[in-house]
Amino acid sequence: MAKLSERALIRLIREASATSAPALIRGIGDDCAVFSNSGAGQWLITTDTLVDGVHFDCHWHPPELLGRKCIAVNLSDIAAMGGCPRFVLLSLCLPPALDSAWLQRWFSGVSNILAEYGCVLIGGDTVRSKELMISVTLIGEAGSSGGILYRTGASPGDIVYVSGPLGSAAAGLALFQKAREEQEDVGQWSQWQALLDAHLSPIPQVDLGQELARSGCVTAMQDISDGLATDLAHIGQESGAGCILYAESLPSLPVLDAAALFLGKEKLDLLLKGGEDYQLVFTVRPDREEDLKAKLASSLDQQIFPVGIITEGQGVILEKKDGSPTDISFQGYEH
Amino acid sequence: MAKLSERALIRLIREASATSAPALIRGIGDDCAVFSNSGAGQWLITTDTLVDGVHFDCHWHPPELLGRKCIAVNLSDIAAMGGCPRFVLLSLCLPPALDSAWLQRWFSGVSNILAEYGCVLIGGDTVRSKELMISVTLIGEAGSSGGILYRTGASPGDIVYVSGPLGSAAAGLALFQKAREEQEDVGQWSQWQALLDAHLSPIPQVDLGQELARSGCVTAMQDISDGLATDLAHIGQESGAGCILYAESLPSLPVLDAAALFLGKEKLDLLLKGGEDYQLVFTVRPDREEDLKAKLASSLDQQIFPVGIITEGQGVILEKKDGSPTDISFQGYEH
Repeated sequence: MAKLSERALIRLIREASATSAPALIRGIGDDCAVFSNSGAGQWLITTDTLVDGVHFDCHWHPPELLGRKCIAVNLSDIAAMGGCPRFVLLSLCLPPALDSAWLQRWFSGVSNILAEYGCVLIGGDTVRSKELMISVTLIGEAGSSGGILYRTGASPGDIVYVSGPLGSAAAGLALFQKAREEQEDVGQWSQWQALLDAHLSPIPQVDLGQELARSGCVTAMQDISDGLATDLAHIGQESGAGCILYAESLPSLPVLDAAALFLGKEKLDLLLKGGEDYQLVFTVRPDREEDLKAKLASSLDQQIFPVGIITEGQGVILEKKDGSPTDISFQGYEH
Repeated sequence: MAKLSERALIRLIREASATSAPALIRGIGDDCAVFSNSGAGQWLITTDTLVDGVHFDCHWHPPELLGRKCIAVNLSDIAAMGGCPRFVLLSLCLPPALDSAWLQRWFSGVSNILAEYGCVLIGGDTVRSKELMISVTLIGEAGSSGGILYRTGASPGDIVYVSGPLGSAAAGLALFQKAREEQEDVGQWSQWQALLDAHLSPIPQVDLGQELARSGCVTAMQDISDGLATDLAHIGQESGAGCILYAESLPSLPVLDAAALFLGKEKLDLLLKGGEDYQLVFTVRPDREEDLKAKLASSLDQQIFPVGIITEGQGVILEKKDGSPTDISFQGYEH
């Protein structure tokens, strides 16, 4: 039997999908699809499916935090367009033996994060299955400015920024995996707590995303779910541009160095290829950098980190102080 | 371990879900949720998940027809509100060993039915899993009249109609199951082809749904996915009313009698409890029946079938020529 690679399948689907249709503003190819009634506000929609043993592991994931994460990864897609989350649909495939207390705790996590982001559950579906599978569809509106940020707007000379430390979630996942393989208790690893938390319960950058869309300073944006090497390559590809990343500029938690050593992993791999940080990567017009920083300082008190520059050509080129530049496009995390 | 029944879970979710929120017109509790920008047109959204071995069986379901059916069951939810289908998101959980040719044939079925209904694919997600699972989210707009039909509008005295023959899909499914158990070839059962087709590739009543919403004659509507006994009970419950069904009025294909006999099943059970016919059940103001029939005759050349009447009280009461009335509420099909 010929097997179809995920990439081939996505290409098949993408070729068959619409680029234009009545009321459609943006189809497949960004964090969300966008649609609108004529003249009225724009709606964003995104969907993500998580499978037990592939995208999460019930052995170490507390159900409340898994509930939060299932929603957070979708909130992050809305954040990546600068949108305001509104409505959620849940599709649950539940094994018959699933514990009722587990499910109630999971659902309390879902309910809590929805309330925190002003988002409400409006529909869904539950079916029986052998595996636990959770599919979330999230609908948002364009933020108050009406502006939406796509992956397509970056131009040569734009500065590449990220919204926060990278590699934390990937290190956290590796710590849980190591603990399980070696039958250790993560409870004794309190020095890594920030990394463990980054894996268990990532924080979507919803307020920042809206502020960036409103600022008028940002040209392209997406969230970092598959690792910067892949996610930035999407912006480059969609914008018809390349980029240079400066290895020494990539932000990380101070504890990441020691954790990388402890795990026997390259810190730079965690920063570039580790998925699931759910930070934002975005490009800023060079003449608007100071303006943007001032706006963010006054509204959100949030620091942002310049990590590279958009160039002519294509590919994500990594520059290090020692060593020659290398193309790292699409070398990110695959489940 | 305490197991949570599907009904208990749905209650839990329903209690936690929103009945009012900005831009939300209708949350959980109907065929679709409805939302709108202020003053602009209304959007409908629905999602359905199909699991291999639970909702379909690859042993007898040709992939093209399964692709059609995955979309059709969601189109039917849009039809049941009188909406116009617009956009689709696909979430696919694919076992690694799935055959590439199967998937391409499945997807061609999806593409064909989308094109036929003027609907376009705008997003989705593919993940690896042990089981094949297909989750479809469909977005529609209110039809040209702007009218949407809910389950809530039925009043005592309204006439209950269905849009076409019942029990066909349930008989078709039973025929496939019998053939598999007895290692027979369905190819020799050409006399049952209409029933087999009704199971393999149901036809959503999209044009009729829009025409009914536009007519101004219909007070409540939903599609028949779980069997008339259950689906009509939803209309009763949501409208705060009961209803009487007349057993002898229920429409069916002429071949259903012989098939029921062949299968050793009660024909009435197939009519009332068999799911997946995806016909519409709707209630009509008694003073508008003739008007509606005239409208449908001129626009769609479609016959509709009166099967009962809405009453005070609650429950779906079945009346037969011989035998005493019985309450059959919620006795429909469960996967």
